[in-house]
Amino acid sequence: MIPIRIRERINLLRIDPAQFLVVGFIALILIGATLLNLPIASENGKSIGFVDALFTSASAVCVTGLIVVSTPTHWSLFGEIVILILIQVGGLGIMTMATLVSILIGKKITLKERLIMQEELNQFSLAGLVKLTKYVIISTFTIEGIGAILLSSRFIPRYGVVKGIWFSIFHAISAFCNAGFDLTGNSMVPFAEDVIVNLTIVSLVIIGGLGYTVYIDITKNRSFKKFSLHTKLVLVITAVLLVLGFIVILITEYNNPETLGKLSFKGKILASLFHSMTPRTAGFNTVDTGSLTISAAFLTMIFMFIGGSPASTAGGVKTTTVGAIFLAVFAVIKGKDDVETYNRRLPHSMIFRALAVVGIGMFLIVFVTMILSITEKASFLDILFETISAFGTVGLSRGLTPNLSTIGRLLITVTMFAGRVGPLTIAFAIAKKQRKNKGTYRFPEERIIVG
Amino acid sequence: MIPIRIRERINLLRIDPAQFLVVGFIALILIGATLLNLPIASENGKSIGFVDALFTSASAVCVTGLIVVSTPTHWSLFGEIVILILIQVGGLGIMTMATLVSILIGKKITLKERLIMQEELNQFSLAGLVKLTKYVIISTFTIEGIGAILLSSRFIPRYGVVKGIWFSIFHAISAFCNAGFDLTGNSMVPFAEDVIVNLTIVSLVIIGGLGYTVYIDITKNRSFKKFSLHTKLVLVITAVLLVLGFIVILITEYNNPETLGKLSFKGKILASLFHSMTPRTAGFNTVDTGSLTISAAFLTMIFMFIGGSPASTAGGVKTTTVGAIFLAVFAVIKGKDDVETYNRRLPHSMIFRALAVVGIGMFLIVFVTMILSITEKASFLDILFETISAFGTVGLSRGLTPNLSTIGRLLITVTMFAGRVGPLTIAFAIAKKQRKNKGTYRFPEERIIVG
Ligand SMILES: [K+]
Ligand SMILES: [K+]
Repeated sequence: MIPIRIRERINLLRIDPAQFLVVGFIALILIGATLLNLPIASENGKSIGFVDALFTSASAVCVTGLIVVSTPTHWSLFGEIVILILIQVGGLGIMTMATLVSILIGKKITLKERLIMQEELNQFSLAGLVKLTKYVIISTFTIEGIGAILLSSRFIPRYGVVKGIWFSIFHAISAFCNAGFDLTGNSMVPFAEDVIVNLTIVSLVIIGGLGYTVYIDITKNRSFKKFSLHTKLVLVITAVLLVLGFIVILITEYNNPETLGKLSFKGKILASLFHSMTPRTAGFNTVDTGSLTISAAFLTMIFMFIGGSPASTAGGVKTTTVGAIFLAVFAVIKGKDDVETYNRRLPHSMIFRALAVVGIGMFLIVFVTMILSITEKASFLDILFETISAFGTVGLSRGLTPNLSTIGRLLITVTMFAGRVGPLTIAFAIAKKQRKNKGTYRFPEERIIVG
Repeated sequence: MIPIRIRERINLLRIDPAQFLVVGFIALILIGATLLNLPIASENGKSIGFVDALFTSASAVCVTGLIVVSTPTHWSLFGEIVILILIQVGGLGIMTMATLVSILIGKKITLKERLIMQEELNQFSLAGLVKLTKYVIISTFTIEGIGAILLSSRFIPRYGVVKGIWFSIFHAISAFCNAGFDLTGNSMVPFAEDVIVNLTIVSLVIIGGLGYTVYIDITKNRSFKKFSLHTKLVLVITAVLLVLGFIVILITEYNNPETLGKLSFKGKILASLFHSMTPRTAGFNTVDTGSLTISAAFLTMIFMFIGGSPASTAGGVKTTTVGAIFLAVFAVIKGKDDVETYNRRLPHSMIFRALAVVGIGMFLIVFVTMILSITEKASFLDILFETISAFGTVGLSRGLTPNLSTIGRLLITVTMFAGRVGPLTIAFAIAKKQRKNKGTYRFPEERIIVG
């Protein structure tokens, strides 16, 4: 009877989880914007203006990393610290909030689904959530700490002790939170050939993008066969995308003089790995994103749309969402009614949910791209790239961000927000009041011809 | 017991409908390519070469309309007649074949679905099919005839009696079959301000793209309320897309000096209507496609992907496919398990089929675009536009077609074919032997987190 009790408590508190998440995020972004709008936040002691403060705050809270001004050049130390705190709260908060909301929203769908979900993950009592949140916070700081120590071995010799430590902490947090903000002014380009920096950043980003349910499962079960279906899918899809991206980028960019062409063979391998990882959804780069060939840029856009895994610091529609759709398509081709994988069956409601996430996401990207095509002077590729990067909270750009018009800045701000909160969450938050309790009456079935 | 008997007969004949359709199309394209490769097919009396003959034949049979050479300039009268016959056979054949295959493939999915489908459309005995095919052929020639007479009222005064009649017949067939081939050398641009030509072409294209099941339903029932759910969805979605396209194109192109800007107000209205219709999937144009603004070009690409309605001469993933997905997304947002519309419920299997069509289509477009990005020298917008135009059998181009490399020509040929036959049909044709009869055992259900 615990689930019913939780529901009652939530009803008593009058919290709608979708609306709570949306409002919470807006509040955090506005606080950040107010702080960054202060004159002391800027290096030159003058206020940046509210639109750019809002853009930067939204980019940090939504762990996107798109920037209208260079982080080290424009912002004072105070400004940089505000940005780092926004990243950490946005990243951590989303992880813990995502935990909360995925449970609470999941519940709203059907009582049955809710019960199954709680049964499976078997820690979703209110007490369990507190414990879980502690686990998330401790593991985050541990991983970020290890990352910072590894980075400091390269940053201290280069930047000196104080700056080196500050850079190590900033970039470790920015990487684990999949934020993509940097203090070098040129992302990780200066370290394109550096094995330790490359592998540390890549590991932090990937771990941050797997999601806490996956760590718990791996720590507990330690054998692929024993993992939950969710963990299996996350690991397999993540690995497949990394390998696929690595191969495509190595091939398409190998002779591009603006990107891999100018690196050593070791650098080519490292940069291919880095740029296979970064669209999902780190936002760092070691070669110039605007110089990527069309095919590599197109693959990057698709990877940015897919993003990382649920309940993690990564954005995008998520690996499992795309995986569920892929499995459903495969089932149709094989003529099966059940969507099956690893000797398990995915419920239809899950495929529908995945379809809604992808469908709303695409609709949003098309809408924003069409408006930006009117307001901005740039190529279709650059505009679409920018929009998907914002939606996926990636932060890669082909150079459009600093040149965006005011309308463009506001539109990208909204897109980052929508991408981070999740299009479905926003839809739930808005559609809430229309949702009715289901009656027992069902309309008669009628078929149409499709395809 | 009729359905079982049909199945037996088909099994006796060892026809697999998906494979039959694929092989039939390939045979027709190869016959066309052989004829067009003859020296007498070219105006200059020299063979065009097999790759271009194949491209043109595939473009005609698949009623696409992409051309590597100008139809009136390059081809002799013999060549033009071959092209027209290929268009008519391709268009008609697809209509009748689509009838056959949608029934036969539909059957393969489940016995229950098959029975429901046959029950609903209640004419799918072998005798009924013959009758239906007759109906399709007669109605096609009637509509094309009326179209040709209307066009001749403008073409005879301009081109003289013989050429005027030939032009009227050619363009009426090309329009009704959604082929988009023209003999003016500049599509319908010379008639951008001509009300009769505009409305005749627009009507022919729209009627051709509705599909025979819709005509039958309209002729029989004559009242929206009595129409089948399929007819209702086709009519509503077609109307919504036409109005939406009209408004967006009128707004985005109004002041573009290369497109609407140079037309009178009447011309602007006509051209907006025309270019709202043509991406779905006529392929004619009255203003230069390559000069469209990015937003109008993006909308055009989306409309090309959607295309017309099932069992028609139009291409794309089809209106009802997109409609089914839209309704499914809407159901998720409203928190409903059933996908409902017009007091009817769409079966889950139908949504999954729609998802497969769109998913495979997108995958194909991404794959082809990435390869073309390597083999061709052109912008991302132009390459993506060309690929979607080929997949949707539209025939609009931003100028890339005549400049395609040999690999590019072959790849676009394959894409036109895949788009016309339908990605799912090809998948069925290949996956066939792997499909098993369903057992009674089902895997246990397990949930994952998506989105
Ligand atoms: K990011
Ligand atoms: K066409």
